This record gives sequence, C-alpha cells and structure tokens, in this order.
Amino acid sequence: MKGSVKIDTQNLTPEEVFITTPQDFKLPEPLPLDCGRVLKEVNIRYETAGTLNADASNAVLVTHALSGDAHVCGRHTPDDRKPGWWDEMIGPGKMVDTNKYFVICSNVIGGCSGSTGPQSIDPDTGKPYHMNFPVITVADMVRAQKQLIDHLGIKKLLAVLGGSMGGMQVLQWAVSYPDMMNAVIPIATACQFSPQNIAFDWVAREAIKADPNWNGGEYTEDTVPARGLAAARMLAHITYLSEESMSRKFGRSLQNKDAGNSYEYDFDFDFKVESYLQYQGQRFVERFDANSYFYITRATDYFDLTAQTGGDLAKALENVKAAFLVVSFSSDWLFPTRQSKEIVDALLKNRKQVSFCEIKSGYGHDAFLLEVNTLGRMVRDFLHHQQGRR
Amino acid sequence: MKGSVKIDTQNLTPEEVFITTPQDFKLPEPLPLDCGRVLKEVNIRYETAGTLNADASNAVLVTHALSGDAHVCGRHTPDDRKPGWWDEMIGPGKMVDTNKYFVICSNVIGGCSGSTGPQSIDPDTGKPYHMNFPVITVADMVRAQKQLIDHLGIKKLLAVLGGSMGGMQVLQWAVSYPDMMNAVIPIATACQFSPQNIAFDWVAREAIKADPNWNGGEYTEDTVPARGLAAARMLAHITYLSEESMSRKFGRSLQNKDAGNSYEYDFDFDFKVESYLQYQGQRFVERFDANSYFYITRATDYFDLTAQTGGDLAKALENVKAAFLVVSFSSDWLFPTRQSKEIVDALLKNRKQVSFCEIKSGYGHDAFLLEVNTLGRMVRDFLHHQQGRR
Repeated sequence: MKGSVKIDTQNLTPEEVFITTPQDFKLPEPLPLDCGRVLKEVNIRYETAGTLNADASNAVLVTHALSGDAHVCGRHTPDDRKPGWWDEMIGPGKMVDTNKYFVICSNVIGGCSGSTGPQSIDPDTGKPYHMNFPVITVADMVRAQKQLIDHLGIKKLLAVLGGSMGGMQVLQWAVSYPDMMNAVIPIATACQFSPQNIAFDWVAREAIKADPNWNGGEYTEDTVPARGLAAARMLAHITYLSEESMSRKFGRSLQNKDAGNSYEYDFDFDFKVESYLQYQGQRFVERFDANSYFYITRATDYFDLTAQTGGDLAKALENVKAAFLVVSFSSDWLFPTRQSKEIVDALLKNRKQVSFCEIKSGYGHDAFLLEVNTLGRMVRDFLHHQQGRR
Repeated sequence: MKGSVKIDTQNLTPEEVFITTPQDFKLPEPLPLDCGRVLKEVNIRYETAGTLNADASNAVLVTHALSGDAHVCGRHTPDDRKPGWWDEMIGPGKMVDTNKYFVICSNVIGGCSGSTGPQSIDPDTGKPYHMNFPVITVADMVRAQKQLIDHLGIKKLLAVLGGSMGGMQVLQWAVSYPDMMNAVIPIATACQFSPQNIAFDWVAREAIKADPNWNGGEYTEDTVPARGLAAARMLAHITYLSEESMSRKFGRSLQNKDAGNSYEYDFDFDFKVESYLQYQGQRFVERFDANSYFYITRATDYFDLTAQTGGDLAKALENVKAAFLVVSFSSDWLFPTRQSKEIVDALLKNRKQVSFCEIKSGYGHDAFLLEVNTLGRMVRDFLHHQQGRR
C-alpha cells in the first residue's frame, strides 16, 4: 500500500462526520483508447474510504453512473451540506462497511469531475480539447481504472460494484480483467443499451446542439449551453423515474394553484412535475459539463459486451471468473429486469457462479440510489460471503 | 344537407383514386374559450367523404391526433403521393365504408393545417397571433367542431371516433354533448394525461425554446425553429413506438457500417434508430408549426375529464348516453391499457353500454395507425351494430 490513503477512519463512529478527500493519480504513460488514439497526461480523480489491509485483500471498487463522480461517500469538509452519492450505503458501520473494506471510486475519463475529459487541456495544443477529445468507450474507462488499481498496489479486488453505467463498467471489468477480482455486482444495467435508450440519448444531445451556446463544443465558462443541457437532463430524468413514482410524487398537481377547475392555462411551468424537472435541469447545469455529456452518453450508446462475439453473450462471458450478484429493479424501464436476466442466463450457460435478485420497487431506475436498505443488505451479505471464500 | 359535399363517391370502386377536398367553414360568431377569452373570425378546415343520407343519420366524425389534420382519407389530386392519415381504414369499400357512412374530419383550432391557430392573423392587430393566441383546451376544440356539425345539418352523429388526442376529443364529445351521438370510439387514449406524459411534453417544448429561432414564438417562414421542433418531434416519436418495435425495427444496427467490432466512434447519427429519428424530425418540421406544437401539447397536458368532479371519473361520465367501444393496444406505454380500463370501469359503474378491447400489438402507441385490419374490423362491426340500433 503506497500511502495514498490519508484518512484514518478507524476511530470514527457512524454518528461522527466521515471525511473523504479527493486525490489525483497521473497515469505514467499515455492511455491507448479503443478508437485508436492515445490520451496523453491522463489524470484520474479518485477517493478512497477505509484502510487497505496488509494483504490488500479488502478492496472494493465502486464505479459511478453517467452523472456520478469519485465522491461516493463521506464529506469533504465537516460542514459539507451533501455527502457522496452512495453515502447512505457506504461508510463506517454502513452496509458496505469502510471499517472492513477499502472502498475506491474514481471519476471516469471523459468526465468533468476531476479526471481528464473534454474540458481538460490538450497537451498538444495548450487549449481545451472540447469536441476534439477522442471518443471514449466503457472499456477505456475501465482500462484507466485498472492503472489506478495497479498503482494502489492491489493485485486482486474483493469486488467491483456499480449501477447503471457503473454496472456496464462492472461487466467490462469482469470480461477485461477476469483474474482481477473475486466478485462483481452489476446493478440496474445491461450488456448493451437498447435502441430506445440510444434514441433518448440522441434526442438529449440534439437538444444540446440546438442551444446556440453549445457552438460545436467551443463554449467558455461564461457561455455554457445551459438551456440545452438542462433539457437533456430533464429528458434523461424522466427515464430514471417510473410512471408510478411520478404519479405518486406529483400526480397532476399544479404549482402554486389548487387543482380542479381553477386552471389558469399557461405555458410556464404549471404542473409540479414540470417545476421539479426544471429544478433538476438547472441543478445539473451547475455541476455537469455539456461536452462531457456528449462523451459519456456516447460511451453508453456504444457499449455492447457482445460486439466481439457476434451478439453471443454467453461467448462474451465464457472467460469471466468472478462470482456475480446481478440486481435489477421491478419498475426500472431504462434497464428492465429482462436485460439482467439475459446476463444471468448467459452466466448459467457457462456454469458460472451467479446470484440474481429483482428488487420490487416503484422508484424506476433511480431505485439503485434509493432502495439503499434492501440493496445494501444484499451487497453486505454477498461481500461478506466473498471475503469468507478467500 | 347544405350541399357542402362536393365529391360523389358512389361510382368509385376502392381500386380507383378516391378524391377528397378540403373545405372551410367560418364560424358565424366568436368562439368562447375555456380560458375566458373569445376567438374571433374562426375558420374550421374540414373534409368529408361519402354522402350524408336523407335523414342525416349516417354521419361519423373522426377526430385527429396531435400531428394529424382534416385530411383523414383519400387524395386531394389523382397523383397525390400520400393519401389521408387513416386512408387504410376509411374510404369506399373500406372498414369504415364511405359508401355507407358520411365521414367528417376537421383540423383542430390551435392547429396549423387550415383551422385558426397561432399563425393565423389576429383580426384585432392584423398580425399573426403567435404566442398571443389564447390557450386552447380539448373542450374548446370540440366546441368548435360542434358548430361545424350543426352547420352540416346533422342533429345526431352516428359516431365520434379517434385515437390519442383524437380519443380525448371523443371522450369530451360524449360528456359535453351527450345527445349528439349514438356511439363513441375512444382509441389509445385516457381521461387525463399522466405526469410522465406531461413531463415529456414539457421537455419537448423546452427543446423548442432552446432554439434561438423560436424567439418567443416571433419567427417568420424563413426563420422557423427547425432544430428545436425536430428535437421535440423526435422525443415524442420515441414515446409513440415500443421498446419492442424499436428493437425489432432497428436493433443496434449501424447506418452504413457493419455491426460488430467495426465501430468508428462518432457523434453524428450512426445507429439506424438515430438516422430514422433525424428523418422523422426533419419531415415533421416541413409540415408542422412550432407555436401550434405549444398550443396542442398544452391542450393534452391540461385535458382532465375529472377536473370538474374532484377526480371522480364515474361522476364525470354519469350523463353520457353514447354506447362506447374503448380500444387500447398492449404495447402502448403513452396511453397504457390501464387507462382505458379506468374509463371502462367508470362506465360500468354507471351501467353504461361499453365494449372494450385491448388489441395485442408490438407497435406501441402508433398501433392505432398501424393495426388497421384488427382495429378496422372492430370499428366496422361496432358501427354496423350502432346503425342497426337506430
């Protein structure tokens, strides 16, 4: 262990503030990419929680979804308003207990939260890449993460776990580096994006393109394509919820008006679901970059575990060695249970070790961030079992 | 019958070209609207097919969906490339046989295909209304249609039928004018839009707003917000298809490339589903107006048959007199079968005459335009039975 873990969490109780600190790892060599180009001077922003044990056997890599980042748990400062995105599940004494496990999470390349992405400076020109950044694949993201894991002195991960695009990375890890982990937990994901999802991504990017501020990706901090990016996020956000959760959460309630016959017809946001989306869109613009949105969504569009095997998923998975826990959510229509079952079936065909659970939930795709108790218990027990097997 | 039917179809066989002609009816009085404003000098663009019989008892009103128009069947000229939007179902010798029935279809107010809408000249200013056009409701659309039916000398329609937003008009007809028809056929519709649908409409309009050409609705023929309107249409188009139909039609096939490992990663349209959507978006811009898109989608957002009855659908339907044929499609997720069943349940609670069928189809919401054989047979038999009952 090379001393990159600066926070000693052993003396913290779950009640105390749990501090995590962003760190940077600069890849020593240029990173070769699937598109044929190489990426120079790559930085990986990452965070860790817990302590790597003496034989480096308690490391759990968490991979993040489209709009996630390296800040998976804890707070950066004691008065941070918001903790990491999976803080409810990961931390000292939590379901993924950082008193037991050494948790690592890194921002994907192509992203906009510290790792090298389209807004980074191209060393060849001294200017931001913008849309000259090379197209990134999920396998490229994983290739960069592998270098981080090597750098941290970890020969074999206890597990790789993640949801949505994070789940795609999990699957890619199991295929690309079969000897590098005991177990994988792909959650609310699929071995390939459906045409419907590709279509939604296309329209989201078209909405960004329609914003003149986007300007082919050549915008500055003062001229971000806020309107287009907000529209893209709102569209995506609809796909993260279920019809059921939207109906329960908003119904047809109006904003600042009584329902019923008191309609004052209007084109401004009027229904509560509209003002909610508007708020989500605006918040997203504050923390996410439009060009990154192009690169990361395109990575999910192109992701296809069966691309090299002529559509044969069993063949694509024949060399994996990890034990699988595959989790889906009943109301998730972005990554329906059917797609998780395809993975399970292909693993069973190969006589691989696989557990599967569809969690009953009304939250849609967002359930992987919200059903923390049910999901967390499952992950906890599975990790515990994997550790016992070593 | 006031002689407004100019086409004698009696001598045409289905093999011959069936000509229909757009006609205009100017409302004699200003039209009062739900929003409290009145619309002056309203024009209704409509078409008819078949001949009204002596006792005016064979009239069938067809109501159109969001992007539809009055041109429901036949061709305007013998060499017209495309017939009306429901031509496969309606015409001489067809399922809705214009040798028997007098079919009427009119463009909704707020539309952009001949009836008064936001691009019409405001008689008070001599300039186009644009976004100063009053907000239109589905009940307003129906109120205008009622005047057309009166003008045509029809005391009682044999039936009112339509799908999607057309189905909303059908339901509104049954409630607003219970003595005006023998039967109604609401297809692939609901008594109210779900919050998910409202959300999709919101994002579609946001995409139009993000296009600087929209300019608050103040564009000219040379500066239409084509990019935003195309994005809006593409988004809506995804909701008209099913995941199943998209997978079957496009899969993950690439445009002009072999599948598999020959990806050349790209942000231009690459997947076939992307180029298909792009094409649909561009075609839509040629025939539809962005401001109309605002008005008509807003009418569907606000449509709620239960708005006056505190959410009680049975109460909302207690005074209807028409016999109902309610039709849904199994893979329609924009107006799922559940919503049709709500209508059926409310009618049964009131001991109304109602038939219901969910047609098994993989086409999603578009099935109401594509499952012509199954739907048409059902409509034919139901209409025949209604005529027999007179």
